[in-house]
Amino acid sequence: MRTREDCLQADLHDPLAPLKQQFELPAGLIYMDGNSLGVLPRAAAARSAAVIGQEWGAGLIRSWNTAGWFELPARLGDKLARLIGAGPGEVVVTDTTSLNLFKALAAALRIQQHAAPQRRVIVSERDNFPTDLYMIQGMIDLLQQGYEMRLVDETLPLEQALDDSVAVLLLSHVNYRTGHMHDMAAVTARAHARGALAIWDLAHAAGAVPVDVTGADADFAVGCTYKYLNGGPGSPAYIWVAPRHSQDFWQPLSGWWGHQRPFDMAVAYEPAGGIRRYLCGTQPIVSLALVECGLDISLAADMAEVRKKSLALGDLFIRLVEERCAGHPLTLVTPREHALRGSHVSIRHPQGYAVMQALIARGVIGDYREPEVLRFGLTPLYLGYADVWDAVEVLKDVLDSGAWQQPEYSRRTAVT
Amino acid sequence: MRTREDCLQADLHDPLAPLKQQFELPAGLIYMDGNSLGVLPRAAAARSAAVIGQEWGAGLIRSWNTAGWFELPARLGDKLARLIGAGPGEVVVTDTTSLNLFKALAAALRIQQHAAPQRRVIVSERDNFPTDLYMIQGMIDLLQQGYEMRLVDETLPLEQALDDSVAVLLLSHVNYRTGHMHDMAAVTARAHARGALAIWDLAHAAGAVPVDVTGADADFAVGCTYKYLNGGPGSPAYIWVAPRHSQDFWQPLSGWWGHQRPFDMAVAYEPAGGIRRYLCGTQPIVSLALVECGLDISLAADMAEVRKKSLALGDLFIRLVEERCAGHPLTLVTPREHALRGSHVSIRHPQGYAVMQALIARGVIGDYREPEVLRFGLTPLYLGYADVWDAVEVLKDVLDSGAWQQPEYSRRTAVT
Repeated sequence: MRTREDCLQADLHDPLAPLKQQFELPAGLIYMDGNSLGVLPRAAAARSAAVIGQEWGAGLIRSWNTAGWFELPARLGDKLARLIGAGPGEVVVTDTTSLNLFKALAAALRIQQHAAPQRRVIVSERDNFPTDLYMIQGMIDLLQQGYEMRLVDETLPLEQALDDSVAVLLLSHVNYRTGHMHDMAAVTARAHARGALAIWDLAHAAGAVPVDVTGADADFAVGCTYKYLNGGPGSPAYIWVAPRHSQDFWQPLSGWWGHQRPFDMAVAYEPAGGIRRYLCGTQPIVSLALVECGLDISLAADMAEVRKKSLALGDLFIRLVEERCAGHPLTLVTPREHALRGSHVSIRHPQGYAVMQALIARGVIGDYREPEVLRFGLTPLYLGYADVWDAVEVLKDVLDSGAWQQPEYSRRTAVT
Repeated sequence: MRTREDCLQADLHDPLAPLKQQFELPAGLIYMDGNSLGVLPRAAAARSAAVIGQEWGAGLIRSWNTAGWFELPARLGDKLARLIGAGPGEVVVTDTTSLNLFKALAAALRIQQHAAPQRRVIVSERDNFPTDLYMIQGMIDLLQQGYEMRLVDETLPLEQALDDSVAVLLLSHVNYRTGHMHDMAAVTARAHARGALAIWDLAHAAGAVPVDVTGADADFAVGCTYKYLNGGPGSPAYIWVAPRHSQDFWQPLSGWWGHQRPFDMAVAYEPAGGIRRYLCGTQPIVSLALVECGLDISLAADMAEVRKKSLALGDLFIRLVEERCAGHPLTLVTPREHALRGSHVSIRHPQGYAVMQALIARGVIGDYREPEVLRFGLTPLYLGYADVWDAVEVLKDVLDSGAWQQPEYSRRTAVT
């Protein structure tokens, strides 16, 4: 693709193009932040009106039965399972990614406590999404049992970090900042070979890259539904537990919805069989129900086509930025190699924050992450090749003109 | 009120009557389950359409700033604070009641660990809402630090349970099953006198009875917004922490939203000042935003009038049931005494489940709780005296006719 016309031709022949019609996309925007918040499915307006007007308003308390609210976390979990290589009855959509990590971590540590009680190290990456690290720290501080967090970074490679003191390895499949993707099967095998359990955070992966938790022999996985899965702002997250572990223990956030017979109102907690024990309290039904609108679009897509287009969009973006913006102090952060790349591309610029604000002001919406990183999400379900072409032209203009130097673009907002 | 006409007259002169217009109530129903799921505020349809269409659909990621999503848990918390006697900056609306209990319990235990490390007992009531007990059990099992749960019941009065081994007393202000209400100030004072901290679950209290956590000198309080506060099915819950405790410790569910500077993406968790450290992961914005519609109606009501009407409705209901249904095997479970009564009335019948199903089939919606208990929520914002009159007539008819004996009414549904 050497010209904009080439890009338009590629869009015309894109097998995923019909799915774009299932989203409401604001006119005049090039939205490259679907890795942070996905776009609005057209079906969501009617679905929310039905949940609010009919299910809540008219059905009221009866809707727990008649509208299937009680089954919703498991029913949506079964749909989500198909996007991550899990089976039915292995996933629930519930709570937040952070909380589901806490559940998975508690469970993994308990399993290890029985199997290998001397293992007291939790390994992650210094560059992992901070909330993952914060949840580890919260758990360690709570337990006061001598656990410690060990972080892989340029001074400590993963191979070296995984010694026989490690209980759990907790990684993101695709890094939130760099877009680097791990080989889940290979890394899990390495962890298992060293006696550690593997927990995967799929927040930046599910719906964007092929994920196969079963094939990778992972132990636990969690993720969110509001990025590539277009579930809506802050829509509930999900948790998968390998069937070999799901009956092993309680998870400690043991609320009524995880009880074997919640309506017996028994005093003693008794966990439900399988994945339902990972439910805790009452879920936000309106936000939860909307998850299905986005899931259904992802399930209608051929994931191999999604991956193929994601990489093609990434290759095009990287090449165009390097050609068109040559001479500006840009550094590619994301790996070029396909096997190492997720579905967003990150580029460093010394004044990254201001550059991104100038882009947003011109209708190209990506986001900024410390330090100096411009992130561009490549979402094959609704982003086209010509969009990528146009975005790079706007970036070139912002850089060539020095427009990003306007003082207003350096002013920080609450959420960056 | 001796006649239905008397009830209609009372409704005509009810100072709260205008607020009923702010709800969408299905025709032909007498809804007496607002203590389980509140009704739909008229404002909710437009609010959800705006959040979904404009904030999510058009604003996309920018709405974290422009639509105030980032401030929403604290802004709604400030509104909710006014209903429970808390100050601004002391409450956040977030997560679920179960999870907020976990945070409060972890914090309270940590405080005691420093102040009185030998205290290892958590006191609650055998008849407390089960999820509260389940969260205590999950915490004890997780910590493995020799904590135990001690339950107040007919064999162990509270006074006796509160010895010097007790770290925390965790009670519901109004009991979910019986409708019994504690004197929060007196019980808290007793706990403090014995060196225990007091955590209150306000799920069946806030919005229905006057609550004053500050005046009661409570330590922590949690509650839900989907019952008397009409926030919508499973709408996010809230947590209040006494300002004297709010800087004391981390709570262990330490996700990104509770960080002091979440967008620095620092590796080390550093809790935000005050109540924001009780936030964890990304919240379900659509469900969260809808909380405000219900809150605004409660804030427009005079809480003294709400309480006065609630008790009057309860007195009327109890008297009519005893007069009109005399001879049937009904036992009043809820205390008659005003000071001991919340805003629902529970009545036992040996075939309570079937009786409730027969009532529901006739448009009188209460609910059933094990064992044998018919619950009737009295929600002054939208229930009238004539509704209560009519409900009792339907109950009388169901009992007199033996209609509840139809086999279909004994068949259990997923959610009772």
